[in-house]
Amino acid sequence: MNFCSNCGSSAIRLTVPPGDNRPRFVCASCNEIFYHNPKIVAGCIAEWQDKILMCKRAIEPRYGMWTFPAGFMENEESVSEAAARETYEEAIAKVTGLTLYSLYSLPHINQVYVVYRAVLVEGRASPGAESLEVALMGEKDVPWQDIAFPVIRESLEQYFEDKQKNRFSLHHGDMRRQAGHDYEIIRY
Amino acid sequence: MNFCSNCGSSAIRLTVPPGDNRPRFVCASCNEIFYHNPKIVAGCIAEWQDKILMCKRAIEPRYGMWTFPAGFMENEESVSEAAARETYEEAIAKVTGLTLYSLYSLPHINQVYVVYRAVLVEGRASPGAESLEVALMGEKDVPWQDIAFPVIRESLEQYFEDKQKNRFSLHHGDMRRQAGHDYEIIRY
Repeated sequence: MNFCSNCGSSAIRLTVPPGDNRPRFVCASCNEIFYHNPKIVAGCIAEWQDKILMCKRAIEPRYGMWTFPAGFMENEESVSEAAARETYEEAIAKVTGLTLYSLYSLPHINQVYVVYRAVLVEGRASPGAESLEVALMGEKDVPWQDIAFPVIRESLEQYFEDKQKNRFSLHHGDMRRQAGHDYEIIRY
Repeated sequence: MNFCSNCGSSAIRLTVPPGDNRPRFVCASCNEIFYHNPKIVAGCIAEWQDKILMCKRAIEPRYGMWTFPAGFMENEESVSEAAARETYEEAIAKVTGLTLYSLYSLPHINQVYVVYRAVLVEGRASPGAESLEVALMGEKDVPWQDIAFPVIRESLEQYFEDKQKNRFSLHHGDMRRQAGHDYEIIRY
């Protein structure tokens, strides 16, 4: 942040505002305080018969890697609406019967993943603008070496574990990146 | 948004960027795109014996009204850490054993409430800087006419209903403000 988006001044300071307890970007000219908060990523594991809907990313980051549909929640929508919208945008797929399935905090990148299970209407899907291809996959079809993000891998592993037990429970946890590519995962 | 926080230009336009499908604030000078997304409010229903911890707000909005501890999740923390931190800040109270209890989207104000049940350590609490007073309350003690926000009332009603049944299940829904003070509540 280089300039105040309110008054245009360059007198932006990272400082703890009065009554607050952590540094914020504050404009020394008009006193506007700028807050930055975590974003929600809403996703959908869309089931059709014995398979789930997967997308091969046509955008960065992780171009060419696989994920289930997921993306940033927008203003003026609910979390489940965001999950359904992302599924439509990425895989031209309609979903119904959304059930909250997991909530994961990723503090190192200021994201919170909220993932739903849902039914893929009529099993129909085709690549949206952000996908190179889409596919219905069982556990053995999943390209486990080419999963776009660790939280997607974690969610998929949980899903297939639950599926094997035929008992889906809500998953809640934190994933923090450690040194290198390792993650600490806390499951509540 | 009046000025670009990246380059300081006043050439901020509300327009749909290429490849996007909704209007964003875009700088016509440096092409920076500014995204605005919903914020998470993390809260805690902290139990001690047969009562829960409530706070009388010492800040606007809703100065003097009652709530359980809740506030905006910050960067670099997990949702449950945010709930515990807010409980400490508002009621100088430590909590343990946090269990995810409800997730409510409030699309009209771009907020998502994530509420936990927890145990109030040693039943100890005292007013933090944002509270006029704190109290341990049973259902009949709650000042139902002076609850700070509709989503807090909804969460408290659910909590005491679950408590009566002695069966706490996860609640998930959307609350949308309708005309006047009415709310449409969708429970999934």
